[in-house]
Amino acid sequence: MDMLAENLRKIYSESGAEALLLEQDFLRAYLTGFYSTDGYVVLDKDFCTLIVDSRYIEAAQKSLGGSNVRVIEGSYKTAIELLKGKKKLGVPYPFTNATCYLALKEEGFDLSDCMPALKKAMLYKTEEELKLIEKACEIAEDGLIATLPELKEGMKESDVAGLLEYKMRSFGASGTSFDTIVAFGENGSVPHHETGERKLKFGDPVLIDFGCKFGGYCSDCTRTFLFGDDKKHEEFKEVYAHVLKAHELVKEKLVAGMTGKEGDAIARDYLESKGLGKYFTHSLGHGIGLQIHEYPTLSPRGEETIENGMVFSDEPGVYLAGKLGIRIEDSVTMKNGKVVSFMKKTERNLVIL
Amino acid sequence: MDMLAENLRKIYSESGAEALLLEQDFLRAYLTGFYSTDGYVVLDKDFCTLIVDSRYIEAAQKSLGGSNVRVIEGSYKTAIELLKGKKKLGVPYPFTNATCYLALKEEGFDLSDCMPALKKAMLYKTEEELKLIEKACEIAEDGLIATLPELKEGMKESDVAGLLEYKMRSFGASGTSFDTIVAFGENGSVPHHETGERKLKFGDPVLIDFGCKFGGYCSDCTRTFLFGDDKKHEEFKEVYAHVLKAHELVKEKLVAGMTGKEGDAIARDYLESKGLGKYFTHSLGHGIGLQIHEYPTLSPRGEETIENGMVFSDEPGVYLAGKLGIRIEDSVTMKNGKVVSFMKKTERNLVIL
Repeated sequence: MDMLAENLRKIYSESGAEALLLEQDFLRAYLTGFYSTDGYVVLDKDFCTLIVDSRYIEAAQKSLGGSNVRVIEGSYKTAIELLKGKKKLGVPYPFTNATCYLALKEEGFDLSDCMPALKKAMLYKTEEELKLIEKACEIAEDGLIATLPELKEGMKESDVAGLLEYKMRSFGASGTSFDTIVAFGENGSVPHHETGERKLKFGDPVLIDFGCKFGGYCSDCTRTFLFGDDKKHEEFKEVYAHVLKAHELVKEKLVAGMTGKEGDAIARDYLESKGLGKYFTHSLGHGIGLQIHEYPTLSPRGEETIENGMVFSDEPGVYLAGKLGIRIEDSVTMKNGKVVSFMKKTERNLVIL
Repeated sequence: MDMLAENLRKIYSESGAEALLLEQDFLRAYLTGFYSTDGYVVLDKDFCTLIVDSRYIEAAQKSLGGSNVRVIEGSYKTAIELLKGKKKLGVPYPFTNATCYLALKEEGFDLSDCMPALKKAMLYKTEEELKLIEKACEIAEDGLIATLPELKEGMKESDVAGLLEYKMRSFGASGTSFDTIVAFGENGSVPHHETGERKLKFGDPVLIDFGCKFGGYCSDCTRTFLFGDDKKHEEFKEVYAHVLKAHELVKEKLVAGMTGKEGDAIARDYLESKGLGKYFTHSLGHGIGLQIHEYPTLSPRGEETIENGMVFSDEPGVYLAGKLGIRIEDSVTMKNGKVVSFMKKTERNLVIL
């Protein structure tokens, strides 16, 4: 647990506050390694204290015994008592509602946003975190592999999403990491299509963007394939080959020390060279961790450098409005200076079911 | 749409602000009747304006054409421009993060919390809202009915939860209204048990607390039953009969004009009379609508009166720590002064599978 303690010291000093108060599930889990649906973490220069109610106290004490995290039973009031004498308090502004913000001001605290300090730490995943993300990716892939043979003509997009989510859960996922996107036919041309009632028919392209959670951590994957080949897919196959090439080029050429912008440009420049640049209408990728959208950002505006231990998506896509959409996405990590994918089981080459 | 317009006028004047700015999915859906995952609503004394981006503009214009809601394409900046000249701005504090709160203060607005005005309106459901809740309840019941025959020894709690969620989705739910609770055996004695790895065996009591969303609206239901009768369930059956009686008494005796406290007391007094009062460790019920926990509150501290058009849960429970837990819950509405249940298909009498 020494790693964690060092990590916490960094967050604390980076925040510039006398203490941090965190009441968000994912942030409590991040700081303590213990997941609960209620509770508070108070971090000061001496202690990381987890406050939970009677439902969690036994499990938390058992799980964190021998660690550097102090566990006490209590409520919001307990947290406020623990903060007595402290003036400068850090809370994560994007995850603190105005009611809580104003209540803390009312208590007399001088508030600041500790999210930048947390984000900075959360960029770098520990071995334990990488293992959980790896498992979340494995479950997602197993889920897709178990779902594909059950696809039938006439199924709705929402049926396929429900089936895939059920399979992921049966392989051990605690839930999805975001609303599963299933798009049939030309629906794929809307990058964030809302899964609906459209029915599957022979020859349809199928785009599935999905992920699950394991131990609180997320996976994110997209595969596009053909539900039977009605021999009308010349253009689809050509574009598919270019998107796949862009996806693979990122894995080959992105190395530690490059900026998010440079990473994005690997895929974007290639697609530009094929006349498809203007149809790649989103960023190459985003960080993945306890949340499905974290840092770093791999986009034309991504100034941060990509370093060892970071986890992010490699997801180029091409969308021809009203016609077709193709996206190929792996969750990957930077390791020993190179990109290593977590996706090891599902095919990236074009699959025709 | 005249109803809605009147409703909006009430919210506006109740808020005491010159304008309201809403950027929460469920609140946008409530005010306009149109659901989107992004956008803004500006409500002032003359107009209710929905601002959506290019993804939604066509669908919003089509859906809201001829209504009193004005639809324009734009972003946050558009909303701020629309608010030019207004000083007193209402935002819902519990659903506004500190980053947004501070950005609006920076714009020069004098902020106040409009959530009390919204809550007051949201207490009373329109016919359209009641129909959506009824459908969400029907789907939930159909889901349970389709799931029960597939229960087998050795299935995990999480398997059953996943299966039920899949069934609800296949009947038309857009998702769950909360994390499905499945508790086998003595796990039922924890009122908010986290669905886990425990395997089902013959003779286990099974508690399932579940619900789904339809058209944005929630359902909430709990059933407790026996997975086979190993003849060791004397106490279980006795307690079950008392919980069921408490549940049914609420339906009989709760009438419009009673307070939430009086409603809660119907169940609580009965369980007290059977020596089970101290094991009924939570409130009788909560409001249900676009969110799974709304108003009114039926608890020993519920001061609001229950009126026609309100929707809430009737969910007494008895929990004997480490031994057994029984909860029976319907989503219900107050209609013509009496309680009417939305649950019409699933059995409330003890089922032995």
